Amino acid sequence: MSHRFFVDEDVGDQVVLSGDQARQIANVLRLVAGDQITLVRNGLESVVALEAVDASTVRGRCVRKQTAGAEPRVQLTLALPLLKGERSEEVIEAVTQLGVSTIVPFVSARSVVRTLSAAKRERWTRIARESAETARRGRVPTIAAIAEWPALFERLVAPVIVPWEGEALKTLAEVLTPPLSTLSLVIGPEGGIGPEEIQLAWDRGATTVTLGTRNLRSETAAIAAVAQVMAILDR
Amino acid sequence: MSHRFFVDEDVGDQVVLSGDQARQIANVLRLVAGDQITLVRNGLESVVALEAVDASTVRGRCVRKQTAGAEPRVQLTLALPLLKGERSEEVIEAVTQLGVSTIVPFVSARSVVRTLSAAKRERWTRIARESAETARRGRVPTIAAIAEWPALFERLVAPVIVPWEGEALKTLAEVLTPPLSTLSLVIGPEGGIGPEEIQLAWDRGATTVTLGTRNLRSETAAIAAVAQVMAILDR
Repeated sequence: MSHRFFVDEDVGDQVVLSGDQARQIANVLRLVAGDQITLVRNGLESVVALEAVDASTVRGRCVRKQTAGAEPRVQLTLALPLLKGERSEEVIEAVTQLGVSTIVPFVSARSVVRTLSAAKRERWTRIARESAETARRGRVPTIAAIAEWPALFERLVAPVIVPWEGEALKTLAEVLTPPLSTLSLVIGPEGGIGPEEIQLAWDRGATTVTLGTRNLRSETAAIAAVAQVMAILDR
Repeated sequence: MSHRFFVDEDVGDQVVLSGDQARQIANVLRLVAGDQITLVRNGLESVVALEAVDASTVRGRCVRKQTAGAEPRVQLTLALPLLKGERSEEVIEAVTQLGVSTIVPFVSARSVVRTLSAAKRERWTRIARESAETARRGRVPTIAAIAEWPALFERLVAPVIVPWEGEALKTLAEVLTPPLSTLSLVIGPEGGIGPEEIQLAWDRGATTVTLGTRNLRSETAAIAAVAQVMAILDR
């Protein structure tokens, strides 16, 4: 399987890559003229035969275009509380592999971490891009700007599902009926979701579900919920 | 909800704790006579009213015993390849919260990391214990001794399921029919599972499944597969 790179512009017949991608192709992967790479943009894969490779410029010719086969049928938005330390990065990596389309970082009343620096958001975007390449996806998930709990619900595409420890009965399998083209999942912060917050979520039409009887940390809940959603909706 | 501690002996009417647990109760949690804690062993919870607290000895009286409510119906064994860096620890934490009973670390032909020191296995056992407390479980998962690929299949309880990138059709939901009292899941190493290895797994009766079209890292595959198994079998 050829190496994959996301690109920011549409791919024409003749391809020129520079910067980090040229350096990686020439110096890290040590590819040469005749090798093939795959350039990916907006769900479309362009297979490119390399014609000239050096560390500053890589030239090639597009030999085939095809739809990326690994994009899920559902556009899943994950609202993820800011987590301590490296925990957010682990989640972004895992849920990108599993197929999320958009990640909306948020803070709520009980959030411990409350700010997201521009540098950190940029780092998360880079992690999402690298994880999407590893997963052989056709799109890079968007890391959205940070939201606060009430405004969060105005930015989420319906239906909105909130795994919540106070919900004893309804499971994801029971509330999700395929096919669904969009879905939003809201994961609670470490301190939990407060009663007024859950009331606001219900008022905005959200459905609460249980992820089971065991108490999950936010990062485990996020990965487990996304895995379950994809198993149900992307078959 | 009261603080939980796993203990290594059955709990009688009178309770005496010492060592780390006494120190944590007295100095970290700052509990006092009259407070309640929960001692957990082999799926049984003993609610204990504290009568005397100091950093070397904590004394109390058992006021109630109950079955732990958060143990899954299925005894799930997870065969987990040794992973680089802290990746194994992240997986042990997450899958303990999600409900695994036993973790069997293993190496196979393409494994990059090939040894597990006694110190590391002890550290993993401690992580499993702490994660089981956080998750409010009734049992601590066992971290088994390391296995090699062929011998691995002699140690796994049937049925044995292997998520594998070469399997295009069968999903976990299709091959698992509740109720099941035992199940083993085998996660491939970073380098993948080789053709002779998958043949051996089939020869020993294992079933291969797909986790979807996206290429998952081992740690994501482990957490996602355990989450799906619990959603299907622990309802």
